[in-house]
Amino acid sequence: MNMSYFKDVEKIKFEGTSSNNPLAYRYYDADQMVLGKSMRDHLRWAVCYWHSFAWPGNDIFGAGTFERPWHPGELVTPELAQIKLDNAFDFFTKLGAPFYCFHDVDAMAAHNTPAEYSRELEAIATKMEGKIAETGVQLLWGTANLFSHPRYAAGGATNPNPEIFAWAAHQVRSMLEVTHQLGGANYVLWGGREGYDTILNTNLSQEMDQLGRFLNMVVEHKHKIGFDGTILIEPKPHEPTKHQYDRDTATVYGFLKHYGLEKEIKVNIEANHATLAGNSFEHEVAVANAYGIMGSIDINRGDPQNGWDTDQFPNSVPELTLVIYHLLKGGGFTTGGFNFDAKVRRQSIDPQDMFYAHVGGVDVLAKGLLAAAAIIEDGTLDGFVEQRYAGWKEAFGQDILSGKSDLASVADYALNGNISPKQVSGRQEMLENLINKFA
Amino acid sequence: MNMSYFKDVEKIKFEGTSSNNPLAYRYYDADQMVLGKSMRDHLRWAVCYWHSFAWPGNDIFGAGTFERPWHPGELVTPELAQIKLDNAFDFFTKLGAPFYCFHDVDAMAAHNTPAEYSRELEAIATKMEGKIAETGVQLLWGTANLFSHPRYAAGGATNPNPEIFAWAAHQVRSMLEVTHQLGGANYVLWGGREGYDTILNTNLSQEMDQLGRFLNMVVEHKHKIGFDGTILIEPKPHEPTKHQYDRDTATVYGFLKHYGLEKEIKVNIEANHATLAGNSFEHEVAVANAYGIMGSIDINRGDPQNGWDTDQFPNSVPELTLVIYHLLKGGGFTTGGFNFDAKVRRQSIDPQDMFYAHVGGVDVLAKGLLAAAAIIEDGTLDGFVEQRYAGWKEAFGQDILSGKSDLASVADYALNGNISPKQVSGRQEMLENLINKFA
Amino acid sequence: MNMSYFKDVEKIKFEGTSSNNPLAYRYYDADQMVLGKSMRDHLRWAVCYWHSFAWPGNDIFGAGTFERPWHPGELVTPELAQIKLDNAFDFFTKLGAPFYCFHDVDAMAAHNTPAEYSRELEAIATKMEGKIAETGVQLLWGTANLFSHPRYAAGGATNPNPEIFAWAAHQVRSMLEVTHQLGGANYVLWGGREGYDTILNTNLSQEMDQLGRFLNMVVEHKHKIGFDGTILIEPKPHEPTKHQYDRDTATVYGFLKHYGLEKEIKVNIEANHATLAGNSFEHEVAVANAYGIMGSIDINRGDPQNGWDTDQFPNSVPELTLVIYHLLKGGGFTTGGFNFDAKVRRQSIDPQDMFYAHVGGVDVLAKGLLAAAAIIEDGTLDGFVEQRYAGWKEAFGQDILSGKSDLASVADYALNGNISPKQVSGRQEMLENLINKFA
Amino acid sequence: MNMSYFKDVEKIKFEGTSSNNPLAYRYYDADQMVLGKSMRDHLRWAVCYWHSFAWPGNDIFGAGTFERPWHPGELVTPELAQIKLDNAFDFFTKLGAPFYCFHDVDAMAAHNTPAEYSRELEAIATKMEGKIAETGVQLLWGTANLFSHPRYAAGGATNPNPEIFAWAAHQVRSMLEVTHQLGGANYVLWGGREGYDTILNTNLSQEMDQLGRFLNMVVEHKHKIGFDGTILIEPKPHEPTKHQYDRDTATVYGFLKHYGLEKEIKVNIEANHATLAGNSFEHEVAVANAYGIMGSIDINRGDPQNGWDTDQFPNSVPELTLVIYHLLKGGGFTTGGFNFDAKVRRQSIDPQDMFYAHVGGVDVLAKGLLAAAAIIEDGTLDGFVEQRYAGWKEAFGQDILSGKSDLASVADYALNGNISPKQVSGRQEMLENLINKFA
Repeated sequence: MNMSYFKDVEKIKFEGTSSNNPLAYRYYDADQMVLGKSMRDHLRWAVCYWHSFAWPGNDIFGAGTFERPWHPGELVTPELAQIKLDNAFDFFTKLGAPFYCFHDVDAMAAHNTPAEYSRELEAIATKMEGKIAETGVQLLWGTANLFSHPRYAAGGATNPNPEIFAWAAHQVRSMLEVTHQLGGANYVLWGGREGYDTILNTNLSQEMDQLGRFLNMVVEHKHKIGFDGTILIEPKPHEPTKHQYDRDTATVYGFLKHYGLEKEIKVNIEANHATLAGNSFEHEVAVANAYGIMGSIDINRGDPQNGWDTDQFPNSVPELTLVIYHLLKGGGFTTGGFNFDAKVRRQSIDPQDMFYAHVGGVDVLAKGLLAAAAIIEDGTLDGFVEQRYAGWKEAFGQDILSGKSDLASVADYALNGNISPKQVSGRQEMLENLINKFA
Repeated sequence: MNMSYFKDVEKIKFEGTSSNNPLAYRYYDADQMVLGKSMRDHLRWAVCYWHSFAWPGNDIFGAGTFERPWHPGELVTPELAQIKLDNAFDFFTKLGAPFYCFHDVDAMAAHNTPAEYSRELEAIATKMEGKIAETGVQLLWGTANLFSHPRYAAGGATNPNPEIFAWAAHQVRSMLEVTHQLGGANYVLWGGREGYDTILNTNLSQEMDQLGRFLNMVVEHKHKIGFDGTILIEPKPHEPTKHQYDRDTATVYGFLKHYGLEKEIKVNIEANHATLAGNSFEHEVAVANAYGIMGSIDINRGDPQNGWDTDQFPNSVPELTLVIYHLLKGGGFTTGGFNFDAKVRRQSIDPQDMFYAHVGGVDVLAKGLLAAAAIIEDGTLDGFVEQRYAGWKEAFGQDILSGKSDLASVADYALNGNISPKQVSGRQEMLENLINKFA
Repeated sequence: MNMSYFKDVEKIKFEGTSSNNPLAYRYYDADQMVLGKSMRDHLRWAVCYWHSFAWPGNDIFGAGTFERPWHPGELVTPELAQIKLDNAFDFFTKLGAPFYCFHDVDAMAAHNTPAEYSRELEAIATKMEGKIAETGVQLLWGTANLFSHPRYAAGGATNPNPEIFAWAAHQVRSMLEVTHQLGGANYVLWGGREGYDTILNTNLSQEMDQLGRFLNMVVEHKHKIGFDGTILIEPKPHEPTKHQYDRDTATVYGFLKHYGLEKEIKVNIEANHATLAGNSFEHEVAVANAYGIMGSIDINRGDPQNGWDTDQFPNSVPELTLVIYHLLKGGGFTTGGFNFDAKVRRQSIDPQDMFYAHVGGVDVLAKGLLAAAAIIEDGTLDGFVEQRYAGWKEAFGQDILSGKSDLASVADYALNGNISPKQVSGRQEMLENLINKFA
Repeated sequence: MNMSYFKDVEKIKFEGTSSNNPLAYRYYDADQMVLGKSMRDHLRWAVCYWHSFAWPGNDIFGAGTFERPWHPGELVTPELAQIKLDNAFDFFTKLGAPFYCFHDVDAMAAHNTPAEYSRELEAIATKMEGKIAETGVQLLWGTANLFSHPRYAAGGATNPNPEIFAWAAHQVRSMLEVTHQLGGANYVLWGGREGYDTILNTNLSQEMDQLGRFLNMVVEHKHKIGFDGTILIEPKPHEPTKHQYDRDTATVYGFLKHYGLEKEIKVNIEANHATLAGNSFEHEVAVANAYGIMGSIDINRGDPQNGWDTDQFPNSVPELTLVIYHLLKGGGFTTGGFNFDAKVRRQSIDPQDMFYAHVGGVDVLAKGLLAAAAIIEDGTLDGFVEQRYAGWKEAFGQDILSGKSDLASVADYALNGNISPKQVSGRQEMLENLINKFA
C-alpha cells in the first residue's frame, strides 16, 4: 500500500459558483473580505484528527470499513503514528485548512503506563512541531482523551477512585503543555464520562466537587505555565453516559459560576450536542453570548430522526446563517474557530470522500457567513428587534432595570393608571421570510 | 343542577392493602410514622385548583367535556366563583388533603382592568380565608397566572413592552400579598411565556435581564411585607413557548447565581417538565440538593411516547421511590410539598374520576415513601455508594479537594508512581435489583 | 369593526428575486413552465379554512389573541359564518390561491343535533358554491371534523358507542356529498381521535375493525354517488390521543391492505405529522410512492425541539426540494396538492401576518420546485442511483428478483465461487453537496 | 487465567421473597403453576450469546472493559470458540435457563471466505449439538449476523450489489439449517442494515423488493428442509441505519402483506426497539395480536432519556405486567419466548454481574407474570373493557360490522333519530389504580 493516501487529489481551489468541479470551493474564498475581515479570519476552521485519522469507520453494530495505511482504530507503533501524521498534514494542506485539532491518543503511539504515555506524547509532539513549522497549519486546540480507555469507564475527574483522577491529571497536564508548546489557541475539555451511567451508584454532589476542583487546577496550571489560550468546556447532555454534568451552555454556566470559574472558562459549542440537549444550535450561541462565555464551535450536525451523536458534516445553510449571525453579533471568534468535529459516513470509504465532506462543509460555512453578513448589512432584522424593545430604553423601563423602581411602584403604575397595553404583532413569519431571502 | 358536585362521594378513608374499595387509601395512613415523622408531614400534599377546578376538559383539538356547576374554562361571575370555592374545599376535605395551591385567575371572578383585578381578587381571598379557617386545609403556595391572557403572548416579565411587565408586577404583588394573608407556605413563579416563540425577534440578553430584575423585585417585596415563605421557580424547557429560560434545575441555578438570587429562590420541580427537558425526575431532585435549591415538587407524570405536557396523575411506584429517596437524603421538605399538578383525562368526566385520580396518586406517594424509607433503613444502597468513593476520604483525595494539591503534584503522583489503577464493578444491575426489592 | 378584514392588502403579485416587497412573490410565478407544466399545476396549493379562519389564536396555556370580525373559535351564527366566508374567499383571491380546503364545522354555523347539522351545512354549502363560481378558487378537499366535539372524546369510527359511529357516519356522508357538490378533487379523513388515550380501556382489534368497516362504507358511498375524487387518509402518530392507528404511511398501508382498501384510499402526508412519527418528510413521500398510495400533502413544518404539532409555515427550501424531487419522481400530483395546514403564530395578530405567512410558504414551494426540477434536469443524482443498483439489472440479479433462483442456488453461488465482493463508496457527502448546489 | 470463568458462582436457586441472597430467585419458581402452566413454560426465557459472550464491553466512545478467557470482541481461534462455548453453557446451566439464542458469528471461529465460514460454522454447530444434549438447554432461535462485517455496510438483502445478497443468502441458508439441526424453535431475521444511511443514494422501492424476495426465499427454504419452527422478523426503526424498513410491528405487517408473507412470518418484538420507534412495549404486543403475527419477545429496556439502543436488563414490573397481560390475552407463546437481548453495563465487569443482571431480569418477568395472571383472574379489567364495547354486540353494531348496513343507512339512523349520545367516563385513572394494585 502506498503510504501517501491522498496522492490522487490535488490542492482544493476556489472556483466560484459557476464551477461544476465537486472538488473545488464554490463559496469559500479565503481572502475575500466580509464585514472588514477575511473569510479565513472569520471562520478559523479546523480539521479534527480523531474522526478523520483515528476512526476506522466502525459503529456499535459493525467493524471498521476504512483501509488506510496508518491503521486507524488500532494501537499503533511510532512508525504508523508517523505515517498518520504525514498524511494528516498532507490532507490539511491540500484542503487549505488554517487549523487542526487533536486529542493526545489520536496522534501518538501505543502506551500503557504514565511513563510510556509521556514518552510517546513527547515524541509525536516534537514531530508535530516540525509539521506546523513546515506547513503553516496551526493548532486551534488540543485536548486529552479521558473517555476511551477502560480506566475511565466511571469518569476521569469524577471517578470514584482518586488514582484515576491522577491519571487524568497527568494526561491533561501533559496535553496542556503540549498545546502550549505547539502554539495552540485554546485547550478543550470534553467530559464524555464526567457524568453517570446510573444515579443509583452515584454521589452527584461529590462528583461535581471533584470536577470543579479539577477545572480549577487546570486553570491554575495554565497561568503557571503562561499559556494564554482559552480553556474551553464542550457541553453534551449524554452519550456515552446516561447523563453528563455539562449538558448544555446554560448548565455549564451555572457550574462555572458555582466553582468560581466563569471568568476563566468558556464553551466550545457543538451543533449535534446542542440538538441532543433539546436546544437549537443558534440558541446555544445566543446563551453563550448572553453569559459572556462564547468560545469556539464544533461544527457538525445530527440527524433530526436519530437520537445519538451522528457527527455528520454540516449541510444546512439556513441553520449556519443564524449561528454565524449570532456569532457575529457577539463579536465573532477571538481565539475560537469552527472545528469540523464531523466524520464521513461508514460507507464513504475513499480518500475523495474526506475531501467532498470537508469541501462541502467549508462551503456551507462560507455561504452562511455571506448570508449572515448580508442580513447585518441589510439592517432590517436588527432594526426590527431594537424597535420591539424600544420601550425599555425610556424612563419607565430604565427605572425598572436600574433598580430605581420596586415591585410596589411598578404595580402601582398599572393599578393607578388602570392600564390596558396594546397588543402588537411579533412578525415571526415576516422575519422567517427575511432570513430566507438571504440564506 | 345541584350545586354540590361531590355530594355522592363520602370522605376517603385509609383501609389498608386488603381493601377492594377503589375509593379508599390502601397505603396512605396520614398519621403513620415513617422515619420519625408522619406520612402527612413527609408528603405535605396538595390539590391544585387549576386542573381540578378551572380546566373544562378541553385540549388543543377539542372542546371541554366536563359539565360542572361552576363552569370551568369560562370567565365567571362572583356567584360561580363562590360555587367553585365551595366545591373545591368540599373536595379537599373529602379527600383529606392537607394543602391546596392556586393561581389568582383560577379562583377569582372575571375582570378586565387592573382595578377590577384587585377588587375581584380581594373578594375571593376574603372568602378563601374563611374556608381555610373552617376546614383547616392550608395553602401550600399561591401564584399568579402570567400566561393565559392575550396580553402575555410575548411574556410577562420578559415582555418587550414594559407596560405588560407592570401588569405582571401588579398581579404578582397582589398574589404574593394574598399568599401572605392566607398563610401560604411558599410563592411560586412559573414563567410559561418567559421565553421565546422565535429567536429571530428576540433579544435574549435583554429578556434575561428583565426577568432577573423582576425576580429581585419579588424577593425585595417579600422581605418588605414580612412573608417568610419560600419563593420558588418552576423549571420547564418549552411549551407553550419554543424555549423557556428556566429549562431545568441546573439552568435555573445558573440564572439565579447570575442575578445574585441563589440564596433567595429555590425550585419547584415538576415531574413532567423534568422529562420534557431530557432529565429523569430523580436527577432534578439530586441536582437541586447538590446546589442547595431544593424547594417543592409538582407531582404528575408525562407520557414517555408523547412530547408535550400531559400532566397525568403519577402511577409509578419505582420512580417515586427514587424521587423520595433523594428528597429524604436532602432532608425532606421544609416549606415545600407534593402538589398534584395533574389533571384527569378528558374522558374522565365524573366526580368519582377526580377522587380515583387523587386517591391513586396519594397512594403511589405513600408507597414510594415507605419503599424509600425501607431502602434507607436497610442501608445497603447508602453503604455501597459511600464505599465506592471511600478513596476520596483518604489523604490523597482530601488534598485534591481541599486545594492543597495542584495539577502538577497530582500528575506527578501518577507519573512517578507509574500507577495502574484497578478496575472495579459499578454493580448497576445489583443495585437495580435492590431497588426492585423495596419498590 | 369593518367586516372586510383584508381591505388594506392588495392582490399579491410575482415581482421576482430582485423585489424587496415583503408582500410579493419572489419565486412563485403561477404560469412559469417547469418540466413542461406550470408552477400552478405542479403545486396545486390550497389555503386551509381551519387555521386561517376558524382558529382564534389560542393554545393550551392561553386564550385566543386574534380579533377578527367573524369571531373565530366561537359557535357562530349564520351571519358570522357568512362574514367568515366572504373574508376567506377575499383572502384566497388576493393571494391568488388556486385551491382551499375545509372541515364542515370550520365554515358552518352553530348546531346541536343531526338535523340542525344538515340544515346549517347545506346552507353554507350553497353559499360556498356561489363563491367558487364567482372567484374560480376550487376545493382541493373537504373533510368532516370528528374530533372537536365532546361526543368524539373516545373516537368517531372507533368509538365504543355505535351511536357515535352513526353521528360520524352522518357527518362524513354529508361532507362527502358536499365535497362532490362543490367539485372537490379529494376527500380527506384525519382520525384525530381514532386511537386511544390509554390501552387499558381499549380493545385495539375491535376498534381497528370498526375503522376498517367505516372506511369501506365511505368508499362504497363514494362510488354510489359517483364522486370520482380520491379518498385520502392523513397519518399522524399521536396528539390529541396517546396513539393513533394511522401513525405513518407504512402503517396506513398495512391497515389498508388488511381491510382490502389499498386500491381505493391514498395518503395525505403532513410534514409535521411525519416528523412527529420519527420519519423525515421525504421518507414518507418515498414510501407512499413505493406502495402506490401517494395522494396529497399537508404542507407545514414542526419545530425540531418541540414534541407537538406546531403547524408552522414551511421555511426550509432544502427540505422541500427533496420532497418535491420525490413527488416528481413519482409522477407529481394527480388529484392532490399542497394544502397549507399551517397557522400563523399566536403573536402574529395582524391581517398582514396571514399574507406574510402564505407568501413565504408559497415561495418556499416554488423555489423547492425549481431546485428539484434542476436536479432532475442535471441528471447526476438519478444517474448515480441507477448506477449504484446496476448489478440488479444483470442476469444474476434478475433471476433473484423474478423468483427463478432460490435460496440454495444463490447461496451456492457464494459458496462455490468463494466470492469476495469489493466495497464501494456510498458517496453520501458528495450527494449532499450536490443537493446544496441546487437547493 | 482459569478457563472456567463462572467457577465461583453456584447454581441459582429459588428462595422466595424472604431471601436476602442477591444471587437467588425471589419470584421465579420454574415449576410453579400459573393459570394452568408452569412459569418455565409461560416465560420460555433465553440467554443471548452476543451480549453475554461476544461483546467485550466497548461502546462508541470507549474500548472493551471485560477481561474474559475467550476474548470477546476479537476474531477467535477454534480453541477460544470452544472455551466460550463451555463457559456459555456453564452459565446457562447455573442460571437454570431453559433456552439460549445466538448469531452464527457469536459462537464460531474467525473466517474470511464463504468456504471458511461453512467449515467453522459446521465445526461449532457439532460441538453445540453435544452441549445441548448434555445440558438440556435448548435453542430458542438462531440467526445470522448480516450487519457487522464491512461487506454489509450498505445492507445484506437490500444491498445494491447482488453478490452481497448472495453472501447473505449463504449465511442465512447455513444458519437456518444449523438452527434446524439443533432443534431450534424459531429462526430470526434482524435487518440491522436493511435500510438506508441516506435516502439520497437509495432506491427505496428496489430495496424493498429485494428484501421481499429474500424473505420469500427463506420461507421457501424452510419448507424445503422441513424446518417447522417459526420465521420471525425483529422490527427496529433505526440504528445503525438512519432508517430501517421494518421500523415497528405495524410497518412489518404492511410489508409482509405486500409480499404475501403474512401467514408465514411473525414478529420478534424488542422492548427497546419499540420505544425507539415511539410505541409503548405493550402496544407492540397488542398490534401483533390484532394482526395475528405475535411471535417472540426480545426482553430488555431502553433509557427514557437516551435515544439509542441501550439494551439494559428489564427492571419495570408494571411495564412487564402489561406486556404479559397482552401476551396471555393473545394465548401466550407458542414457539416464542423471552430472550434476554440485554447487556450488563460497561462498568459491570465481574462474572457476578452477569448473574445479578439475569436473576433480576428473570424475577421481573416472574413477578410480571404473577401480576398479569392476578389481573386476569380478578376479571375487573377484562369485564370493564367488554362492557365498554357492549353496544357493538347488539343488532345495530353487528349490522355495521357485518356489512349489512351501509353509510347511508347508518347516517340516516343518526339523522332520523336526531340522536344525542350520552357521554360516559373512560375511567383511565381507576384502571391505572387497578393495575397498581396487582403490579
